[in-house]
Amino acid sequence: MPQQSPLDVPEGDPFGPHNLPYGVFSTGGDARRRIGVRIGGHVLDAGAAAEALGSPYAGLLGHPSLNPLLAAGRTAWRDVRRALTAWVTDPGHREAVEPHLLPLDAVTLHLPYEVADYVDFYASEHHATNVGRMFRPDGEPLTPNWKHLPIGYHGRSGTIVVSGTDVVRPSGQRKAPSDPAPVFGPSVKLDIEAEVGFLVGTPSEPGSPVALGDFEDHVFGLFLLNDWSARDIQAWEYVPLGPFLGKSFATSVSAWVTPLEALDAARTAPPARDFPLLPYLDDADADRPGGFDLHITVSVNGQEVAHPPFATMYWTAAQQLAHMTVNGASLRTGDVYGSGTVSGPEVAQRGSLLELTWNGRDAIELAEGKRTFLEDGDTVTLTAWAPGPAGTRVGLGEVTGRITPSR
Amino acid sequence: MPQQSPLDVPEGDPFGPHNLPYGVFSTGGDARRRIGVRIGGHVLDAGAAAEALGSPYAGLLGHPSLNPLLAAGRTAWRDVRRALTAWVTDPGHREAVEPHLLPLDAVTLHLPYEVADYVDFYASEHHATNVGRMFRPDGEPLTPNWKHLPIGYHGRSGTIVVSGTDVVRPSGQRKAPSDPAPVFGPSVKLDIEAEVGFLVGTPSEPGSPVALGDFEDHVFGLFLLNDWSARDIQAWEYVPLGPFLGKSFATSVSAWVTPLEALDAARTAPPARDFPLLPYLDDADADRPGGFDLHITVSVNGQEVAHPPFATMYWTAAQQLAHMTVNGASLRTGDVYGSGTVSGPEVAQRGSLLELTWNGRDAIELAEGKRTFLEDGDTVTLTAWAPGPAGTRVGLGEVTGRITPSR
Repeated sequence: MPQQSPLDVPEGDPFGPHNLPYGVFSTGGDARRRIGVRIGGHVLDAGAAAEALGSPYAGLLGHPSLNPLLAAGRTAWRDVRRALTAWVTDPGHREAVEPHLLPLDAVTLHLPYEVADYVDFYASEHHATNVGRMFRPDGEPLTPNWKHLPIGYHGRSGTIVVSGTDVVRPSGQRKAPSDPAPVFGPSVKLDIEAEVGFLVGTPSEPGSPVALGDFEDHVFGLFLLNDWSARDIQAWEYVPLGPFLGKSFATSVSAWVTPLEALDAARTAPPARDFPLLPYLDDADADRPGGFDLHITVSVNGQEVAHPPFATMYWTAAQQLAHMTVNGASLRTGDVYGSGTVSGPEVAQRGSLLELTWNGRDAIELAEGKRTFLEDGDTVTLTAWAPGPAGTRVGLGEVTGRITPSR
Repeated sequence: MPQQSPLDVPEGDPFGPHNLPYGVFSTGGDARRRIGVRIGGHVLDAGAAAEALGSPYAGLLGHPSLNPLLAAGRTAWRDVRRALTAWVTDPGHREAVEPHLLPLDAVTLHLPYEVADYVDFYASEHHATNVGRMFRPDGEPLTPNWKHLPIGYHGRSGTIVVSGTDVVRPSGQRKAPSDPAPVFGPSVKLDIEAEVGFLVGTPSEPGSPVALGDFEDHVFGLFLLNDWSARDIQAWEYVPLGPFLGKSFATSVSAWVTPLEALDAARTAPPARDFPLLPYLDDADADRPGGFDLHITVSVNGQEVAHPPFATMYWTAAQQLAHMTVNGASLRTGDVYGSGTVSGPEVAQRGSLLELTWNGRDAIELAEGKRTFLEDGDTVTLTAWAPGPAGTRVGLGEVTGRITPSR
């Protein structure tokens, strides 16, 4: 009986040949960072396989980061994906490819791209409404601009870390309304935000907005993102210029970037719009729907606590890109933008502990005891899947992180 | 009569050997980017001079960007500055150095460092009070947090441009309170913000705050910065997550970075604090005063319109650095942070047109006619000087930019 090949991925595996997300890895025996493509429970050393096969993409795949591939543009993304698909599915390539497969647990995964700018949006109506009710109880939950433009702000690129990186509990100022003065100390309201991140490949020129329809020319792929948030620090600092230290200590991203092409079957229409949109944001007549039907699961210490549905997001990633550049701001290869916390209409669909516990009022039950916000030692993991071709599922690479005590 | 040497800088020149700011240049005949040091009306090709003199710093100075020098740390900064000072002052070096001097008007200046993260603060009490009065007329002008922490937010690194770069007028959404819905078009309230930028050299570890007293171990130097602002876009978008497209289209920085060491004589005490500060921000017992006595001039089309005094800033750059990292956020070489608009207590000391014209109510007079906000073709220039050793003045490199029409 022939030995099973790692390329014989079981039917139904969400990391089958219809997926092929990109990452960057090294091994204990070889510290060089190399581009890896995930197939089932293995990682293909893409550059080495390309060399072995005499592929014209050996150059693009032979870097320690995805950035050169990202910068190569949409046609190159499509062509490289076609080649990779052939390598992992065509029996004629099997002999050349198999030596370049490593078991997932034999590799160390790294941040697979150099982050340029990082923007975080606020695109879930349910999330924004919940936060508005808690943070601004005396006003309308949604600000008057919310349904006219995708609200966003810049975050800290330098503290984006790859899945698996420990997160040190941040310290900072906080002040409850009843306190006479702010106090300093480790955050007592450390939270998560379950988000989807988008990765820009193709740059744009200063002064030249990117149109809605050009989204797929610029965005290479997407991934899960956890925008760790210290709610007590954030509440005291954020008026009038927005979140700063409540967010800037760490943002965790998956080690795997799923190309947009793998998500063709997941495209879905966004919710109906309540107000007419200005032309640069109006996607009513778009060639294809702007939403993605991603099913996210939030787990704390291995226990599922929420299932945020990305399909409910009011603003799409294409609208966010069009808005981000409409003032002429240019894009660079490696720009990352987050969707904002994904929360659905149901309590069990909320993508933050702030919302799940209603700012600490309603604790959730874990095996270790009750939780309102995160305790030291807690591990948070986001996973997700999307519909793939012919009834398959496309898995997104998980993003996980553990809280360590403030120093 | 011997020909005058470019090194015979006239007494009183603000770019004499007591200054020696760093930049990066190329020439029409040689497109390689090289580190330049300004001396009088000339630029010293620092790497070439170091080679000619057999200096051990030829490596650090032989790059197309300041980043390797920035990353080398404070001891290297001091040693390189000592060497440069000797090269431009010691007659014994003159013969070797002179061939590497180029007239300023013979070089093209470039952005001299690769920007990592960009943070903008809001540290002038006069500016924040003026803005609060205009944008939030029904509330207290300063938010309750303002005197407890230096408010800041992240800006867009990828649109930081060097002095001399044209700025395309941004388009975006705006909505006057009386408008039924937002409208789209080129900004009609295009403004400047006269600021001072600080450039981080030495990185810091994630989870490890930088103490107030370690400011000079991490910050290499400072420069003038114009944080272009579209007030109409900003006013509509900024609640609740802060400025985004109103700022992200362009930020202009000087081509010259002045090392902190050149500004020893400019150190000055910040204003008296109205509230006790938490220990990590308390600079009452600092070894040296945290302010800088920089005298800024704002000119529009060559006509002086304001003289903002940097010495009046409530929060110091050291406090801003301590705050920015107190949550454990790490620094990278090339991080830039802006002071926030510099405005003094007098009308003629305000660092923005928003304040100078009180949001367009009081036009200022230029030779070309009245101005409330900027018109296409307008050129804005910031210059500044500071007290230097022994009665000298230290000039800061100008930052200038011209508005071109929206595309």
